[in-house]
Amino acid sequence: MSFADRLDAAVEDVGHPLVLGIDPHLDLLPKEFSTARSLQASNEERAAQVEAFSAQLIDVAAGQVAAVKPQAAFFEIHGSAGMKAFENTVARAHDHGLLVIGDVKRGDVPSTAKAYAQAYLAGDAPHVCDAITINPYLGADATQPFLDACQGTDRGVFVLVRTSNPESALFQEHGDPPLSEVVADAVSTWGNASIGECGFSSVGAVVGATHVEELARLRKRMPKTLFLLPGVGAQGASAADCKVAFPDSNHPWRGALINSSRGIAFAWQRPENAQRSWKDAARVALGVTVAELRRALGLTPC
Amino acid sequence: MSFADRLDAAVEDVGHPLVLGIDPHLDLLPKEFSTARSLQASNEERAAQVEAFSAQLIDVAAGQVAAVKPQAAFFEIHGSAGMKAFENTVARAHDHGLLVIGDVKRGDVPSTAKAYAQAYLAGDAPHVCDAITINPYLGADATQPFLDACQGTDRGVFVLVRTSNPESALFQEHGDPPLSEVVADAVSTWGNASIGECGFSSVGAVVGATHVEELARLRKRMPKTLFLLPGVGAQGASAADCKVAFPDSNHPWRGALINSSRGIAFAWQRPENAQRSWKDAARVALGVTVAELRRALGLTPC
Repeated sequence: MSFADRLDAAVEDVGHPLVLGIDPHLDLLPKEFSTARSLQASNEERAAQVEAFSAQLIDVAAGQVAAVKPQAAFFEIHGSAGMKAFENTVARAHDHGLLVIGDVKRGDVPSTAKAYAQAYLAGDAPHVCDAITINPYLGADATQPFLDACQGTDRGVFVLVRTSNPESALFQEHGDPPLSEVVADAVSTWGNASIGECGFSSVGAVVGATHVEELARLRKRMPKTLFLLPGVGAQGASAADCKVAFPDSNHPWRGALINSSRGIAFAWQRPENAQRSWKDAARVALGVTVAELRRALGLTPC
Repeated sequence: MSFADRLDAAVEDVGHPLVLGIDPHLDLLPKEFSTARSLQASNEERAAQVEAFSAQLIDVAAGQVAAVKPQAAFFEIHGSAGMKAFENTVARAHDHGLLVIGDVKRGDVPSTAKAYAQAYLAGDAPHVCDAITINPYLGADATQPFLDACQGTDRGVFVLVRTSNPESALFQEHGDPPLSEVVADAVSTWGNASIGECGFSSVGAVVGATHVEELARLRKRMPKTLFLLPGVGAQGASAADCKVAFPDSNHPWRGALINSSRGIAFAWQRPENAQRSWKDAARVALGVTVAELRRALGLTPC
């Protein structure tokens, strides 16, 4: 079964396309993990806290979302101990039946890209994910090893097309047509060999939900591409902004994933959650975010 | 002392600007390390062989080159055990007084880019490098954390501008002016805050030596940018092709680094080296490559 089909089934199961991002930024961890912030803490001590926090967040997510998206940088920052925490996080998510989208944004020349594709998409080593994010700057031959890893397998990729950060237009909107549309056309073509029964390809695209007009334009250029939409919540986009990414009115949850990371994991920081444990705050925020999303997409209440 | 100045001094010391790339691709390791290729080998066993090979290659390089460039993908492919091997490789190179350019090609939205910048450029954790390669696709705000890590410190970055792979033009040459020139202008501007006494900035650029005409054009647009030139040797460019990247006739070794990876590390595969150990083959290939480069740059024989 293709990645797109596995994801589609999992999304239908939980009743919404929200993905929980796991960004265990030391400065934002709840006070239970504050010893990791000590200047004296070793990489091993920090990685252990990052892993413990991620594990508990996965417990909150289990059965509630189709997939989680751990951000590699917040693990790599602690070196090999952090990478071990990443492996254990991926393994725990898999143990709970969650799909794992490794947010690694890798990209390199062809022979090296092949190593990255093997590293994160091939086999069943503990750091291997169901899908990863990749960077298209190096071109078609450099992307091919990642496409090969998706074709005829159950793995997927999400190619950066239009990122959610404020100054992403600098290069992504360069030229006429803008680069993001040229990349979108390539992604659409690259995906043709990996279209699943759900009608969408396992070669997906990252499109920031913060750019509402581009989102509509890019959906038209990539009609069969699975979208991964960051930027909802903390970065300012609303669930309603994302509706245009879901083109199938018979299956209004189908065709895109909406990621929320800090708005859920770090909900404990908001004043209204002062009396709640961080996990309860995350649980409540997850429920509220899912309800908003289901409303925005016109899905019947659970 | 800025990264550019440290590198300049080290290059002057060894008498040439050749960087040795460390790409421990399992399929290309000499027979002494062939157990790593067994399907039964664990990540730990593979990582141990990758580390042993890299250590011996560093011993060959010590005192002969200014810097080494380990390619992260060939370590990451073995998970956390591979990342530990990466750490030990960086540490061993530092022990030998070699500068380390981590070829990691990272790039992400600003808060995550900050984590990558901390991971690979801040402090003295074992995975921290003197400089890393980064991907500019996400734009200026996403690059800023890496620039901050270079300003007023002894660290550097090399921003991908025009990569050496055959199909890199697809996006990098999109638009008029082509994207690579727009990125080059940005890199040149970004580097202004980090120009060292040698006259070059610690915010460098990766420009494939395989694109000779673009190389000349990009040098004009980035007159004070340190260039990292892959593509010499195995990928088809010659040392003479690179001369245009060295603009200072009084200091003809200054302003660029030329990388060679497989042509040296895997010289043992060439028929003329059949009677040599892999290390002797690497040593001879390194000597020949350095001599060619010094000739091409008009440097007097050692």
